[in-house]
Amino acid sequence: MTVRFGLLGAGRIGRVHARAIGADPRARLVAVADAMPEAAAEVAKAYGAEVRRIEAIEAAGDIDAVVICTPTTTHADLIERFARAGKAVFCEKPIDLSLPRVRDCLKVVEGAKAKLMVGFNRRFDPHFRAVRQAIDEGRIGKVEMVTITSRDPGPPPLSYIATSGGIFRDMTIHDFDMARFLLGEEVETVQASASVLVDPAIGKAGDYDSVSVILTTPSGRQAVISNSRRASYGYDQRIEVHGEKGAVTAENQRPVSIEVATAGGYTRPPLHDFFMTRYVDAYAAEIAAFVAGVADGAPLTPSGADGLAALALAEAALASVESGRAVRVADILAR
Amino acid sequence: MTVRFGLLGAGRIGRVHARAIGADPRARLVAVADAMPEAAAEVAKAYGAEVRRIEAIEAAGDIDAVVICTPTTTHADLIERFARAGKAVFCEKPIDLSLPRVRDCLKVVEGAKAKLMVGFNRRFDPHFRAVRQAIDEGRIGKVEMVTITSRDPGPPPLSYIATSGGIFRDMTIHDFDMARFLLGEEVETVQASASVLVDPAIGKAGDYDSVSVILTTPSGRQAVISNSRRASYGYDQRIEVHGEKGAVTAENQRPVSIEVATAGGYTRPPLHDFFMTRYVDAYAAEIAAFVAGVADGAPLTPSGADGLAALALAEAALASVESGRAVRVADILAR
Amino acid sequence: MTVRFGLLGAGRIGRVHARAIGADPRARLVAVADAMPEAAAEVAKAYGAEVRRIEAIEAAGDIDAVVICTPTTTHADLIERFARAGKAVFCEKPIDLSLPRVRDCLKVVEGAKAKLMVGFNRRFDPHFRAVRQAIDEGRIGKVEMVTITSRDPGPPPLSYIATSGGIFRDMTIHDFDMARFLLGEEVETVQASASVLVDPAIGKAGDYDSVSVILTTPSGRQAVISNSRRASYGYDQRIEVHGEKGAVTAENQRPVSIEVATAGGYTRPPLHDFFMTRYVDAYAAEIAAFVAGVADGAPLTPSGADGLAALALAEAALASVESGRAVRVADILAR
Amino acid sequence: MTVRFGLLGAGRIGRVHARAIGADPRARLVAVADAMPEAAAEVAKAYGAEVRRIEAIEAAGDIDAVVICTPTTTHADLIERFARAGKAVFCEKPIDLSLPRVRDCLKVVEGAKAKLMVGFNRRFDPHFRAVRQAIDEGRIGKVEMVTITSRDPGPPPLSYIATSGGIFRDMTIHDFDMARFLLGEEVETVQASASVLVDPAIGKAGDYDSVSVILTTPSGRQAVISNSRRASYGYDQRIEVHGEKGAVTAENQRPVSIEVATAGGYTRPPLHDFFMTRYVDAYAAEIAAFVAGVADGAPLTPSGADGLAALALAEAALASVESGRAVRVADILAR
Repeated sequence: MTVRFGLLGAGRIGRVHARAIGADPRARLVAVADAMPEAAAEVAKAYGAEVRRIEAIEAAGDIDAVVICTPTTTHADLIERFARAGKAVFCEKPIDLSLPRVRDCLKVVEGAKAKLMVGFNRRFDPHFRAVRQAIDEGRIGKVEMVTITSRDPGPPPLSYIATSGGIFRDMTIHDFDMARFLLGEEVETVQASASVLVDPAIGKAGDYDSVSVILTTPSGRQAVISNSRRASYGYDQRIEVHGEKGAVTAENQRPVSIEVATAGGYTRPPLHDFFMTRYVDAYAAEIAAFVAGVADGAPLTPSGADGLAALALAEAALASVESGRAVRVADILAR
Repeated sequence: MTVRFGLLGAGRIGRVHARAIGADPRARLVAVADAMPEAAAEVAKAYGAEVRRIEAIEAAGDIDAVVICTPTTTHADLIERFARAGKAVFCEKPIDLSLPRVRDCLKVVEGAKAKLMVGFNRRFDPHFRAVRQAIDEGRIGKVEMVTITSRDPGPPPLSYIATSGGIFRDMTIHDFDMARFLLGEEVETVQASASVLVDPAIGKAGDYDSVSVILTTPSGRQAVISNSRRASYGYDQRIEVHGEKGAVTAENQRPVSIEVATAGGYTRPPLHDFFMTRYVDAYAAEIAAFVAGVADGAPLTPSGADGLAALALAEAALASVESGRAVRVADILAR
Repeated sequence: MTVRFGLLGAGRIGRVHARAIGADPRARLVAVADAMPEAAAEVAKAYGAEVRRIEAIEAAGDIDAVVICTPTTTHADLIERFARAGKAVFCEKPIDLSLPRVRDCLKVVEGAKAKLMVGFNRRFDPHFRAVRQAIDEGRIGKVEMVTITSRDPGPPPLSYIATSGGIFRDMTIHDFDMARFLLGEEVETVQASASVLVDPAIGKAGDYDSVSVILTTPSGRQAVISNSRRASYGYDQRIEVHGEKGAVTAENQRPVSIEVATAGGYTRPPLHDFFMTRYVDAYAAEIAAFVAGVADGAPLTPSGADGLAALALAEAALASVESGRAVRVADILAR
Repeated sequence: MTVRFGLLGAGRIGRVHARAIGADPRARLVAVADAMPEAAAEVAKAYGAEVRRIEAIEAAGDIDAVVICTPTTTHADLIERFARAGKAVFCEKPIDLSLPRVRDCLKVVEGAKAKLMVGFNRRFDPHFRAVRQAIDEGRIGKVEMVTITSRDPGPPPLSYIATSGGIFRDMTIHDFDMARFLLGEEVETVQASASVLVDPAIGKAGDYDSVSVILTTPSGRQAVISNSRRASYGYDQRIEVHGEKGAVTAENQRPVSIEVATAGGYTRPPLHDFFMTRYVDAYAAEIAAFVAGVADGAPLTPSGADGLAALALAEAALASVESGRAVRVADILAR
């Protein structure tokens, strides 16, 4: 079966997915919708698709699945509409910035028995997958401590920050999902510290740019997350898992791996400076997994429930910063 | 301008180039020819091309360039035919196993004022290119010593070895080209040692499987090449250039870069085990460079002369093994 | 000036210091005291010193300085006695497990105008010193986030744990000192999570074996510490400092740095498996720094105040685990 | 048994050995001789030894062994004298620059049934020993190809070069010994290329500063040696052994192993810049091995025969450069 796609949103991340669909032998891009018709047209032309309005995609008989890359505020509504329309839905993270709204949305999806996958692309990075595989193969024994370092090359525009929901919901959420992917147990409590070290304007916007988080599970497993909105040396993305029999790490990736030795020392080039080049393989594998799920009926992971769980951790982290307490995730979910 | 391609030969390497053409926005695969019609049909279908006979591609008005991936014995003839037919020609290495035949072929190309590029794919590897760039930027000063380590995961079938022209013409030829790419001077003398250490059957076939070579230039620069037909740990491809101000190296590449630490030590996965996965980016960049040359009239490198020069080094190496002498390349070319 | 030493305690760590004194051209070991006379005799013989009783060393005219390597419970008393006796004092960490007792002891030292240095050996590790030097040279700009990973090869005997004061006062205390050494600001609040993952008997003894800690400074700098009492791959000791202009890391050390590549991958040997081999250079540099301080009058660092400050962080961490709150260091010190 | 030493020559390398003797619990430095009395006195004082004339050491009843660190031209004479005097002899490399002279000297040693060890210190480097051990344990199977990279931080003074015997006898000789240590077979033929790339004055002195060598054994094993008299990035000392089941490498050593990441890339410090700091552990282990051989009667390795064999390879390499031929070692030894 070839999965026929509608793309909602032809911006930066939309184009990434369009390219992945174009390259996948089991997928075909049929239609593109965007509030800016020229953007939709450009992407449609590049992959032999048509420009259509969202309503037309919703009603189309030649569309099996949609990829939602529109602004965050529209995600939950679009998920509900396309779930009801019987399309399989791939939605960029987050489903919504409000936990109750996410919960309502997932009920609609469940009621429609629709397929939904949430875009935590890092689970599909080949290096991170190999870390998980090493755990699953028992190479490090029982997982004890997970360490995630995640730093952006530089902060996003202030306009973006204003609508992002804050660093925990926007940036750390990827690391919350990764921690859940690796810990092998749900998180019970969250402790977090947050500062403004990179740009005071971020603080004035009510957000933070540097955070440290400790997650603890019922059996005492721990995960530590370290985030910064700026790393001069590139897109810093590392994970390490320590277990009873050993540890496994995924180191940083760079576009070119040479080393120049001079009297001043041995120098390797900086890392990737952009998430799209860093995770190019992950984006392709992510769409391939979605296509496989739609075509073959395999379970779609990460699911809507994974999206909800990561958001709950973000809320708990924020509550911990505000209260100076270790916050129980159950209390967040019970709100 | 979109460059319209005919593909001659739909085997393993032909498919690699077909994929690169398919992915290049400035290239289009129009026709495929192969002695086995099903092979041609399969590749044609995958990229929206037609199956045609070689004669038809030769005469076609909708073909600007051909990629020659047929058996080595046919290369020189096909280059001449398509050069005369006014097509730009990309030919897999080698042009021919005989130096005089290569020379004759290049005269025909020159007479036809045809464009010709030879498939030394490693020049397009991003890591090796970055080594060359570091040299060109003066980061290591004047080049003094080049070290090339090149080991295959395992030997090819004996049937392949029988028609390969021997390890120097088949395998080391890539390293001869790389040495020329990095030395910044033509090679003057060649010293070589060759053994059969991997498989006695290779020796019975009249070939070697393990070789060491020293190349020397007129000003005394040296290059050392180390080859083996077998490396248990994968496709071992490293270069190092030592200069007056420093050194630059390109290390090995692996598909997954994790590390597992246990009581037994720290273990990283083996290297790529296949040249096609190791050099996937190089093949794409190679076709892109050819397309740019054809479309924009830029010089095509590596050229037919580069193919001839590398073959002359292979002949010199073989002569050195047989004579126990340092062999002058000028003497080989003067034969 | 040659500094003439008395060694109090001829056990494992006492021997390390005896060797460092013996190798230092500006130091001489004159006398050794130990509750077990044979232990004292053995060390004395190896370095041409005498066995003496503690009282004799206290009263000796030919002793300039003492190194205190006796059990923790005796540290504060001995510091006071030798401070009053006019000897320069080097004391292994900790000064005491009780914050008030440490405070009282430091008052005696101050009153006696005595010289005191506390044995946080890691500050003298050449790699960690180089990290600090890179910071001091401004290579990474203002410090923002410090990450310290510290894992022992295996847990100590339960008998040791029983009198150790717990993991924070015994093990993490080194990392608290290292964090203070690198943060460039005093710590304001401490958040900690602690579990028993390695050995339930440690939990029964009222202690933890796996901890994560976040330290925050007034300007918002953060340090994260990750500890485990067991690492199958050796003595895991890493630090990383992220700043506004870059980051600097000190990686793990291993006794032998070879790599074996086979079909199973690339394997390097495990790390040092013992703190004495890992920090052999640090111990030598530590004594050299003490000798320089005593002989030349330079300030002795880390000081008694550093010992107090690290212990306060340990108390704060424990309080955070028990209360589930971010604990202010000022509140601990005000107790 | 404590081995009582006389040291002949109190220069740079003599002091290295004096320190190693001083630190070895089974060795004691009793006497020091040097043409410059102050040099002898300084070393004697530092290690509690006496200054004596060579004749007195020869006749002394309280000396078991001598370490010869005098100028090369005196080595063979001194070896003979002290062998006849019944002392165990450790001599810095080379025994002599003349093959016949070495042969005569070894006959005297043999006739006197004297113990002789030659100072190829690199065999005692812990990393290189671990490479050899990995081979001996069968981890890489049968050895096939050895690669030795050896570059000095900078050229020695021209005055040194004038009496050095040339780069092959002075510098490459270490690598010839290392190749023999690792190949597991004697070398049959030598091919070499030599240039002057670093300093024309070296060429005017009749020497080379950049050489590449291929060694071949009867079964076809190969070793490649690459030497330069200058490496801007420090003392470059690497070995790699490729075998049927895998490969083992020893990488370069640096005094401080930190890494600084900035917008300009990831930079580690340069290597050791001096053979004495690079090989400090090797020198200590070398003397310990000599002491063990003298005290316990174990065979002393590397032996005089090893010294002869390495010199023969140096002669063969020079002959290859001069003749442009692969030179048989047997022909050199038959001269």
